[in-house]
Amino acid sequence: MYKIAEPTLLLDKTKCLLNIERMVEKAHRSQVRLRPHFKTHQSREVGRWFREAGVKEITVSSLKMAKYFAADGWKDITVAFPVNLLEIDTINELSQRIQLNLLVSNEEVLPFLKTNLKYPTGIFIEIDLGHHRTGLLPDDFSAIDRITDFLSLSTNLHFKGFLGHAGHTYQKKNAAEINRIFEESVVNFQNLKNRYVSAFPDLIFSVGDTPACSFKDDFSAFDEIRPGNFVFYDLMQWKIGSCQLDQIALAMACPVVARYPERGEIFIYGGAVHFSKDFILMDDGSKCFGKVVHLTENGWEHSEENLYLSAIWQEHGRILTSQGAAKKLETGTLIGILPVHACLTADVMGSYLNILDHQRIKMMKTEI
Amino acid sequence: MYKIAEPTLLLDKTKCLLNIERMVEKAHRSQVRLRPHFKTHQSREVGRWFREAGVKEITVSSLKMAKYFAADGWKDITVAFPVNLLEIDTINELSQRIQLNLLVSNEEVLPFLKTNLKYPTGIFIEIDLGHHRTGLLPDDFSAIDRITDFLSLSTNLHFKGFLGHAGHTYQKKNAAEINRIFEESVVNFQNLKNRYVSAFPDLIFSVGDTPACSFKDDFSAFDEIRPGNFVFYDLMQWKIGSCQLDQIALAMACPVVARYPERGEIFIYGGAVHFSKDFILMDDGSKCFGKVVHLTENGWEHSEENLYLSAIWQEHGRILTSQGAAKKLETGTLIGILPVHACLTADVMGSYLNILDHQRIKMMKTEI
Repeated sequence: MYKIAEPTLLLDKTKCLLNIERMVEKAHRSQVRLRPHFKTHQSREVGRWFREAGVKEITVSSLKMAKYFAADGWKDITVAFPVNLLEIDTINELSQRIQLNLLVSNEEVLPFLKTNLKYPTGIFIEIDLGHHRTGLLPDDFSAIDRITDFLSLSTNLHFKGFLGHAGHTYQKKNAAEINRIFEESVVNFQNLKNRYVSAFPDLIFSVGDTPACSFKDDFSAFDEIRPGNFVFYDLMQWKIGSCQLDQIALAMACPVVARYPERGEIFIYGGAVHFSKDFILMDDGSKCFGKVVHLTENGWEHSEENLYLSAIWQEHGRILTSQGAAKKLETGTLIGILPVHACLTADVMGSYLNILDHQRIKMMKTEI
Repeated sequence: MYKIAEPTLLLDKTKCLLNIERMVEKAHRSQVRLRPHFKTHQSREVGRWFREAGVKEITVSSLKMAKYFAADGWKDITVAFPVNLLEIDTINELSQRIQLNLLVSNEEVLPFLKTNLKYPTGIFIEIDLGHHRTGLLPDDFSAIDRITDFLSLSTNLHFKGFLGHAGHTYQKKNAAEINRIFEESVVNFQNLKNRYVSAFPDLIFSVGDTPACSFKDDFSAFDEIRPGNFVFYDLMQWKIGSCQLDQIALAMACPVVARYPERGEIFIYGGAVHFSKDFILMDDGSKCFGKVVHLTENGWEHSEENLYLSAIWQEHGRILTSQGAAKKLETGTLIGILPVHACLTADVMGSYLNILDHQRIKMMKTEI
């Protein structure tokens, strides 16, 4: 058993490599580029596992992250976040060395970029595929025309293509709904292709969200996919139906610190500073902040009992259970918890424990 | 103006020192010990500001935090969290050097502590004051008797007193409700005092939650108070009524990265990895993840318009506003956001920028 005394994020490398391999093969079958989003793992070491699987281009969510991965040899990085003009120095530093691709989510940023970009930089126009966060509506041709015209006249702004993130799949609960959103993306991008491909024959059409990339098999309508979460998966993806429970590659080992069998409650050392605060709703409407698994010599096993984290505070977590089960979970022992949202859990923890070799895997937060 | 290019947590030391001073004076007037909870700021430097105000004893929420502050010269530390038996080595290492006080939240941990504690260690019995998280019910005299009997016969377990955290005040919205909970705590502790003080004349009765410690003035029914959040305050405390907006000592500086005036939406670089995910509900039932303030040369000023963060994702934040206001907030500028829950925001950020001298203030996460 692990020699663990405080909440520790376990990473099952075997599961993780299978998740990577499956997505690499899927992209290969559709002959699209897999440009995985590295904001989920934020780790050089996990990044190298992708490189060993043949991945050469990546996606990140900040310039800080681009810098971190560029320092580990990644040469083609898309920052899939509206370009932050205040970081122009980092942009120029990176675009001198690597193929850096930025996201233009509205016209307003273009004059500044034209004046201040020192080196050729890839530009994707962000398209709002229905998520209604950032990006231009796919039929806002007048704005898109103005941007493409502007880009055509710029020396250092190289128009690369259209990028969308159908993040509204995260709110969906079945294959039919995911499918409908995916098909809408296909139509929207097809319309853009019809309109712009003659003027820009090398345009890249890039989409990426783990639910669609997990449910669907045929991505031939696009040029690249950018899923991120699939590297670990989590309960949110499991609830959507993107993965099975045994594909989830992370579990938090947490000490049991108090129990009240008479009220069927177990308390663990493990709270918001370890898991972050996302939750899923159980069938009965109650909140679930994580699912209990049994830790074993080689990882973890799913429990027959449906035990879950029903409440978290800064460091406390509460598990509701039967009196009988509570009696089995003694204080001073460890239990495992599958996280609800792997990206945020990894981010707050800042490192992983690789259960294959019991070595710590660092992340951006702990390396820079 | 600040030379800031990415989300940065600003700390107004002037406001922070006033918050500390006010609570120190309040405790002094009631002749109770202020043992502030350091889990909010998690910073040696902010800890030193308390020391300069005369504070000698502190509260923390983990043994890791106890170790971090002990290394900075704190000699009397209560870990206000159910004792984690898996960290017995850290406990022994600390109790050899300092006055370490642990929390016993149920009987089950006692035999292990008796066998494994190597040095005299303070023990508080945790009382559930109605929060129904951990601790014994205040009228569960049979269990309390068994614990006090056990402690009387132990060499290294020194019974120090009763400790409660009325965390259910966080769910309340007015002085009357906070007052009622406070009065219940007074009665519960008075009953315990009546029953145990003859056998244990030096018993300490310790309570602590920022709402009660902010609303109330007379703590003479207790021996010590342990509020933590008041050092910074936040929107959650403001909503409860514990503070005024201008007492909040933290604001996140965030770049504006995209805007859509036609739909009254501004997007900032600032999301769950910066703020964590707690929210308060506005009067109209909508979620608020932070409140917009105007950054100035010397800090920030409150805005007349009631602008707030209405949604956050991993790195994106959305502000709803009027078309007119959206036109004033240009991409590439900075805005300030008051956090909803200072403890979690500080924890995910890992450091502060002191706006008095523009120096970075480190936290536990970035120092060990």
